[in-house]
Amino acid sequence: MRQLIDKMFGAAFRNEWSEEQHDGAILPDVPGRQPVLTTDSFVVDPLSFPGGDIGTLAVCGTVNDLAMCGAEPKYLTCGFVIEEGLPMEQLWSVVCSMQSTAEQAGVQIVTGDTKVVDRGKADKLFINTAGLGFVEPGHAARPGRIQANDVVLLSGDVGRHGVVVLAARDGLGFETEIESDCQPLNHATRGLLDAGVEVHCFRDLTRGGLATGMVELAGTAGLACSIREAEVPVREDVRGACELLGLAPLYVANAGRFVAVVSEAHADRAIEVLRGLGGDHQPVRIGSFQAGRGGRVTLQTTAGSERILDMLSGEQLPRIC
Amino acid sequence: MRQLIDKMFGAAFRNEWSEEQHDGAILPDVPGRQPVLTTDSFVVDPLSFPGGDIGTLAVCGTVNDLAMCGAEPKYLTCGFVIEEGLPMEQLWSVVCSMQSTAEQAGVQIVTGDTKVVDRGKADKLFINTAGLGFVEPGHAARPGRIQANDVVLLSGDVGRHGVVVLAARDGLGFETEIESDCQPLNHATRGLLDAGVEVHCFRDLTRGGLATGMVELAGTAGLACSIREAEVPVREDVRGACELLGLAPLYVANAGRFVAVVSEAHADRAIEVLRGLGGDHQPVRIGSFQAGRGGRVTLQTTAGSERILDMLSGEQLPRIC
Repeated sequence: MRQLIDKMFGAAFRNEWSEEQHDGAILPDVPGRQPVLTTDSFVVDPLSFPGGDIGTLAVCGTVNDLAMCGAEPKYLTCGFVIEEGLPMEQLWSVVCSMQSTAEQAGVQIVTGDTKVVDRGKADKLFINTAGLGFVEPGHAARPGRIQANDVVLLSGDVGRHGVVVLAARDGLGFETEIESDCQPLNHATRGLLDAGVEVHCFRDLTRGGLATGMVELAGTAGLACSIREAEVPVREDVRGACELLGLAPLYVANAGRFVAVVSEAHADRAIEVLRGLGGDHQPVRIGSFQAGRGGRVTLQTTAGSERILDMLSGEQLPRIC
Repeated sequence: MRQLIDKMFGAAFRNEWSEEQHDGAILPDVPGRQPVLTTDSFVVDPLSFPGGDIGTLAVCGTVNDLAMCGAEPKYLTCGFVIEEGLPMEQLWSVVCSMQSTAEQAGVQIVTGDTKVVDRGKADKLFINTAGLGFVEPGHAARPGRIQANDVVLLSGDVGRHGVVVLAARDGLGFETEIESDCQPLNHATRGLLDAGVEVHCFRDLTRGGLATGMVELAGTAGLACSIREAEVPVREDVRGACELLGLAPLYVANAGRFVAVVSEAHADRAIEVLRGLGGDHQPVRIGSFQAGRGGRVTLQTTAGSERILDMLSGEQLPRIC
């Protein structure tokens, strides 16, 4: 089985490093750039869902974490934990998703590892990816750079990924009409940075959704933040599915949505740039940071009231990514 | 649970990157060095064994893969997949092992990820680590640099780790007298490189042991290789345990043993340097590479005969690392 898997990975991810069959990938130097390192494990259940599968997620998740630092993602590692008995065609399909998503993002999968465990000791397939990217010193986006009066831009509608995965898991009927927003975001972040937009921070809105992402950012930045609910796009079918599933769209995981925190003076330009990139981005200005209690995020609701947003309360949705 | 885990990791792995709580770690540039990237997943069963635990292994394994490329390991990522119900004190013990092993190796754990899955959907704890190191261009060790007449040095006795884990798993009595050889190897490889030894390649002898490592190296290098069995140190208790367990010591996984492939002229000096580093290394010259059929490894047995070594034949020992 291991030999088969090695052949499979060798065929899909072929490049000069995988061909060297060494303990690690010795990569070219990138003078004047800082390395950026990140990792994520993926345990999504079910393995595939409308709009993607665990392989798409595993590449996008790590590519996007690098992009959120302002870095250009370059190289990925992948570690597979496989439950004995996983059909080989299912694994092959995931490996092909990884390779095509890597091509879409412009990254190479340079080294990996496979472990097989007995039936019943894992659930089909878990994937870890780590990513290495490089950032120009002036482009480094981080929570510590956020300032009062910075504007919060959201890259598009929220809530799709979580709803799609839960619906696919439970065999609900509406999943066919909604697709996950799973996509690499590095072309969007690069577009903004290359256009000279003064970006202070990016954050992709994965586990815990938009609300949790904003509370985390505000906490780390030591600033308050306010968000206008009416400006946050949620598709009607996603809103309906959330009601059915008992979810709040602002807390549902996304897989291809992010916020960009930009200086007030650059907000309009940022929206223009993102729109010009085409693709799935429909950027909107949803709020801003202000001096105030660090981590306090206020939602101006559509009903006209104000509400303090918390981290995801209650149980975190399990195995959504 | 997730909050508890985050606090635990935050406390154990505290550094400027973990404190920034961003999607990735933005690291300092290392001018004139090439980045080296590697990854490994760890699913060892049981989680702890004489001489280490899954945390020790997860740090050593990735540190050692970087060291085998001639690189100085600097930064690790870690991804945890945790089965619901894992006792927190057990997780804490593993996290502490990781931190103390990281200190011993001189690396920092800069970013991580945690996923919790339902009881029965994983086996207690799986860990992935990825590692970033940097290599001086002249120090890059790789199979492609191996030449005919290069000497194979082995860093010490083989077979301990696999025997210890199997014995601990099966509750055999002799495990208390043998400890895993699990250890970071980067100080040893750096010692050799800093002393100016002309090292062409390193290989740590993990899954599949010495025999598999040599067959892989010879295959990638396109050379033949011969090994003298009498020169390969195996402790008497390890040899006895192997007989009991039906294992061949040359195929048993190690966690802190490596071969250095060095130019003939530098072999004596290399042994002297490794001896001088102290620690657990007892270097011996076990064989050499020659022109011949690529991948053909001949064992001169203690019985005086010759035998062609294969990759690990039969079933790979599962979950040894």
